Amino acid sequence: MEKTSEQYLVDLAEQALKGEKQAIAKLITLIEESIENFEPIASIIWPNTLRAHVIGVTGMPGAGKSTLISRLVKLLRREDKRIGIIAIDPSSPLSGGSLLGDRIRMQRYLDEGVFMRSMPARREGVLPWRALLSLEILDAAGYDYVIIETVGAGQSDVQIMNVADTVIVTIIPGAGDEIQMLKAGLMEIGDIYVVNKADRPEAETTYNQVRFALENIIREGGWKPPIHKTAAVMNRGVKELLDTIKKHYAFLKDKNLLGKRREKRRLLELDMLLKARFEQLLEEKLSSDREILELVMRVRSHQLDPVTVSKKILYDIMRCLHEARS
Amino acid sequence: MEKTSEQYLVDLAEQALKGEKQAIAKLITLIEESIENFEPIASIIWPNTLRAHVIGVTGMPGAGKSTLISRLVKLLRREDKRIGIIAIDPSSPLSGGSLLGDRIRMQRYLDEGVFMRSMPARREGVLPWRALLSLEILDAAGYDYVIIETVGAGQSDVQIMNVADTVIVTIIPGAGDEIQMLKAGLMEIGDIYVVNKADRPEAETTYNQVRFALENIIREGGWKPPIHKTAAVMNRGVKELLDTIKKHYAFLKDKNLLGKRREKRRLLELDMLLKARFEQLLEEKLSSDREILELVMRVRSHQLDPVTVSKKILYDIMRCLHEARS
Repeated sequence: MEKTSEQYLVDLAEQALKGEKQAIAKLITLIEESIENFEPIASIIWPNTLRAHVIGVTGMPGAGKSTLISRLVKLLRREDKRIGIIAIDPSSPLSGGSLLGDRIRMQRYLDEGVFMRSMPARREGVLPWRALLSLEILDAAGYDYVIIETVGAGQSDVQIMNVADTVIVTIIPGAGDEIQMLKAGLMEIGDIYVVNKADRPEAETTYNQVRFALENIIREGGWKPPIHKTAAVMNRGVKELLDTIKKHYAFLKDKNLLGKRREKRRLLELDMLLKARFEQLLEEKLSSDREILELVMRVRSHQLDPVTVSKKILYDIMRCLHEARS
Repeated sequence: MEKTSEQYLVDLAEQALKGEKQAIAKLITLIEESIENFEPIASIIWPNTLRAHVIGVTGMPGAGKSTLISRLVKLLRREDKRIGIIAIDPSSPLSGGSLLGDRIRMQRYLDEGVFMRSMPARREGVLPWRALLSLEILDAAGYDYVIIETVGAGQSDVQIMNVADTVIVTIIPGAGDEIQMLKAGLMEIGDIYVVNKADRPEAETTYNQVRFALENIIREGGWKPPIHKTAAVMNRGVKELLDTIKKHYAFLKDKNLLGKRREKRRLLELDMLLKARFEQLLEEKLSSDREILELVMRVRSHQLDPVTVSKKILYDIMRCLHEARS
């Protein structure tokens, strides 16, 4: 890949800070290509972050997250707030493609004050580092709210808890009994719960199950996660949900918990970037070092075992370090 | 952690090869503690692997995977087959604990010819490298079948496809419409589909949805994934499922596809072990290097950005390598 000129990146970053959508979009595209494209602009973006209210919206597929978000956005636009949205698409494991139906439907609600970006989860269930750097760009660009939509599956649940100021867990009526929700770990991460599609007959049962599951749960600072019923398609209950979202933000500020959440975001970012950089290094090594490639081939064909070879490859990359140590 | 003596590990490995369950259990415990405990025994275990039929059983939480497996095990025991089971438990993101209800229920069906091990997914949605090395130990110990049970969420789906010879996807009636299953990526990984709890009234609808979703799907070599209806609790349809499992294995052998699957397993193992070793190295560094810890603290407190610092830390670890390069 050709290296993007630093000056070009700096120019884009400065335009992004002024809220120019095209520059933001282009910048995110370049970041998606390589972490390195963020390096020349870190000193421009970073000091301007930690201003937006970051909201994570998670839940099982089909819970109506996109519709809910578009309704929230509509209300926030009436207050003249600017909103950035990063939607993590569950990738299909084979094709790597993403299912864009919901996204396309959401486009209708977008206007000048809304920036929306959809991003594939390159590994399903893992929040991509690209999403986190995009979030920082949107934050620096002055969006009042940045919403991250993620499918409640696997690791991304734990991660969204460390990224967002406010985590909204959406639940679909009849999707499963309480045990299933517990298993999915969703009961442990939400600041606000939403039983969406509340017009369905099963909604009341699900609502009660969620209430029961949350009965004795109190989050840090004494926050008791409220449960909302919404029917986003019909725009029911969305206003009340937005009020609670704002209340939660005020609560975090009031209890001096906002800074703590953001420290977690920083640590997660660092952790993800370290791993991403190592993987990049490894890929480079595998595609350029014949000796290592030969080792990989011999593991594949059952001639060598991966335990021994993984050690050898890592030592090879780190060789000098270990020599210096001993 | 104290280093386990190599001779002790070698002794355990030799006992494991003879099928001694206590030695196998102890060995797996030691492997779980550290990759390094596998190193002295790799040359003993490795040449004896690739003999077992490895079956992956996946599906959403609550699909009745454990019950289904226990019924399959019962049938296989009648044929005097020996079966190893590795059950990956979805961990709760906060406590790290696992929900063992199903496991405890499964214990009832265990006898001398069955080895069962339950293992937490330290990161949810990711197959642990520990499970893969345990699988190899069970394989080498002469188990005819090794069954890996994993929750169908996130990355583990893609991974199970690269680990198992035969992937069984279990689906619960009424769990969701076809789109949801597509989103979950489950439609792309199964060699055999099972609509479990088929006694439920919604079973027929779900069966038809799955059939529709799979209509034009053909796997490598021309395998058309069959759909079974089972009611594992009532032991219905399990015999037919077992027949299909055996048919799939014969098919893989017949079409020379078994080796290819196993090449994928080897590559996944290598990849996972490389990353696990890097993370281990990173953790060591973070807990011993004051300068690096200081950098981390400054990222946390928003004084430094994680992009720049991640580069610095990685370069620091790799310093000599980069010096040698330039």
